[in-house]
Amino acid sequence: MNQPHRSTAFLTDMYELTMLDAAIQDGTAERDCIFEVFGRRLPNERRYGVVAGTARVLDAITHFRFTEEQIATADFLSEECKDYLRNYRFSGQVDGYREGELYFPYSPIMTVRGTFAECVILETVILSILNSDSAVASAASRIVSAADGRPIIEMGSRRTHEQSAVAAARATYIAGFDATSNLEASLRYGIPASGTSAHSWTLLHVDEDGQPDEKAAFRGQIDSLGTDTTLLVDTFDITKGVENALEVAGTELGGVRIDSGDLGIVSRRVRKQLDEAGAFNTRIIVSSDLDEFAIAGLRGDPVDGFGVGTSVVTGSGAPTAGLVYKLVEVNGYPVAKRSSGKVTYGGGKSALRAYRSSGVAVAEVVHPLGIDVPRKPNLEYREMTTPLIRDGEIVDNQPSIEDTRALHAAARKTLPWEGLALSRGEVAIPTHFIGFPEPTE
Amino acid sequence: MNQPHRSTAFLTDMYELTMLDAAIQDGTAERDCIFEVFGRRLPNERRYGVVAGTARVLDAITHFRFTEEQIATADFLSEECKDYLRNYRFSGQVDGYREGELYFPYSPIMTVRGTFAECVILETVILSILNSDSAVASAASRIVSAADGRPIIEMGSRRTHEQSAVAAARATYIAGFDATSNLEASLRYGIPASGTSAHSWTLLHVDEDGQPDEKAAFRGQIDSLGTDTTLLVDTFDITKGVENALEVAGTELGGVRIDSGDLGIVSRRVRKQLDEAGAFNTRIIVSSDLDEFAIAGLRGDPVDGFGVGTSVVTGSGAPTAGLVYKLVEVNGYPVAKRSSGKVTYGGGKSALRAYRSSGVAVAEVVHPLGIDVPRKPNLEYREMTTPLIRDGEIVDNQPSIEDTRALHAAARKTLPWEGLALSRGEVAIPTHFIGFPEPTE
Repeated sequence: MNQPHRSTAFLTDMYELTMLDAAIQDGTAERDCIFEVFGRRLPNERRYGVVAGTARVLDAITHFRFTEEQIATADFLSEECKDYLRNYRFSGQVDGYREGELYFPYSPIMTVRGTFAECVILETVILSILNSDSAVASAASRIVSAADGRPIIEMGSRRTHEQSAVAAARATYIAGFDATSNLEASLRYGIPASGTSAHSWTLLHVDEDGQPDEKAAFRGQIDSLGTDTTLLVDTFDITKGVENALEVAGTELGGVRIDSGDLGIVSRRVRKQLDEAGAFNTRIIVSSDLDEFAIAGLRGDPVDGFGVGTSVVTGSGAPTAGLVYKLVEVNGYPVAKRSSGKVTYGGGKSALRAYRSSGVAVAEVVHPLGIDVPRKPNLEYREMTTPLIRDGEIVDNQPSIEDTRALHAAARKTLPWEGLALSRGEVAIPTHFIGFPEPTE
Repeated sequence: MNQPHRSTAFLTDMYELTMLDAAIQDGTAERDCIFEVFGRRLPNERRYGVVAGTARVLDAITHFRFTEEQIATADFLSEECKDYLRNYRFSGQVDGYREGELYFPYSPIMTVRGTFAECVILETVILSILNSDSAVASAASRIVSAADGRPIIEMGSRRTHEQSAVAAARATYIAGFDATSNLEASLRYGIPASGTSAHSWTLLHVDEDGQPDEKAAFRGQIDSLGTDTTLLVDTFDITKGVENALEVAGTELGGVRIDSGDLGIVSRRVRKQLDEAGAFNTRIIVSSDLDEFAIAGLRGDPVDGFGVGTSVVTGSGAPTAGLVYKLVEVNGYPVAKRSSGKVTYGGGKSALRAYRSSGVAVAEVVHPLGIDVPRKPNLEYREMTTPLIRDGEIVDNQPSIEDTRALHAAARKTLPWEGLALSRGEVAIPTHFIGFPEPTE
């Protein structure tokens, strides 16, 4: 993984450092703490969420080092605190869900154990990564379901921050997209890159009188990329565009892309035109503000692949996952904010997922860390919580991105059928808290 | 400006490079082109948009250089194309709206002139930056209006990609926010940083029996940050929290922060409690999923400042600005995609903004580049289009972030009063196209 290893330490809210400083002053900095990442609900009444960003978090934690320039700027800190930052390296433990896993309300996605000082200042960067990557992966997974096996290219880089675009490409690939338009993501993570041409390519090809020459554009693309390329046929008139494409490329043309109009109607008309011309193998790729609902609406249409941009990189209506990082245990004592309407079980936690023998998931079982809980004999259980960092070092045998992608595909298959519904509704499986004392008011 | 100067060249869609390669092959690469950045509409029927990211775009363009590692990965390109990339530097012209300006549908926000080859490959990074930064600034400007002069701290870093958070902090500051929680943004752009403490700070303070000790937490914070700090009083019980805060800090306490509950009701109750205790100068800061509508709803309440997170960094319902980068002119000929329902005036453009003598804006006047258009004698006009890059070099005298922030504040004052409405509705001022031939069908 070719990650940029700049310091991640200032991707942090100021109050993390002022709390650290105050803790050093009042003697609480070295208390043993457990912080937990979880979400209280799924955005937009979705049925499941997808954990993404874990590998990026582990990387960010192990590269959380303060530079002298950063420390010099932090003139609001005591000298003692600055010395602490100079020597900072996380030496605690991180456990959590595997990247690519499904999660539900109160799933303990990640647990960070160590001193208050070393754990508190990781909050912002951990949440930034998990909230953005999980938002994208959660949307992407629904889009993959809707596409029903047809390939999807992620092409949303231009609709989100330039570095967010790289992480988004990674998250969509984990969730089952097939390729990305983003070159940096391809270079950094080994994701297949894909792309052909834009409307500007066709518009560039004017003749000596400044008149459009679509055939010249198609010819130039074919000469450069071969007949198997995909030609964008909707710059002027789609029927004429397809005609021009076939005239230039012949019936072995790889594909045509349609980026406007009612994609159901247009794809059926274009399929007919292609078939009548004998171009039976020419694929139809569609794009243009597609989200999971638009794609589901094309299930019966002759579409061979999708390009998805804006919707997926912005989380398709839920641009952040709403995960929080909460202190749940201090020196062995469970702690929790008192809030009406929020479940607040303090203490470190682990989770099991219970399945029927058919492999269908039936419940998320959250229990106190290190406590065995009774298991029902008719169900099978899987440990959701795995070690990620031990004594500050990333645990060996981290999965490759391909492993993570396969894990997600397998996990999605365990959802009960209601869990794949795109509509708003109930969470796919309930979360049970087992082995906790009754919450106090 | 302390920017990270890594190569920006791979923050790019693959098809930009395959088009470049094809253009080198078919002889169109050196055609003179004009690309234009604009939006066809404002998201969510808003009244105006805010241009942000311009300075970051200029930086990205001048650091758009391909590394050997990148070129080696691009095995889908011809050797000729790889040589072009090795020697790439943008040597063309960029004009556009000043950062911080208002924009409307079809405002020509940025115009890039040069050869097809040098302009086309900048598309993705230009749009990534302008779409994300303008989305945040546009939301932030509405939030600033709603806050009606009361200060706002941006604290949304944890809800967006870790680098997007830095850019978002910058965009909110331009739009009129007063400070950010994000340390990297403070270091990189000189934005005031702000922050006090989280619930974890209070929860950390348990006594020997593991029981909560809110007063110990408040004491620790006061000892470290002084009496002028802001104490977070809603971890357990707000009334008791305020009582504890005053007991520890006295009536000179700087502020209390409330992060949950009905903020109108709670702020009134807390103000009463503070006043009755004589803490007349203790400020009330509120946070908790605030957006422009929630803030507007608190206009009559005794709130002295706002912390805004999720909503602003995700564009408050519009996470991307929807700006596009379109080829509008080739070798002096206007070009445009044919699309029903879209205004498509080809050719390079400039814009004026027309004002009444009172200073209120009345229209955006878009006209062909380099053509003087008739001006109405009863209106005043301002040139919106300014030179940003000349022959590849950023034009001298770029504004500081403080200048940009002041420019935005002044621009917002020119909106007609309907333009400040938070509700969905008409664009604040119409866009007139003057001096173009009638569009052809």
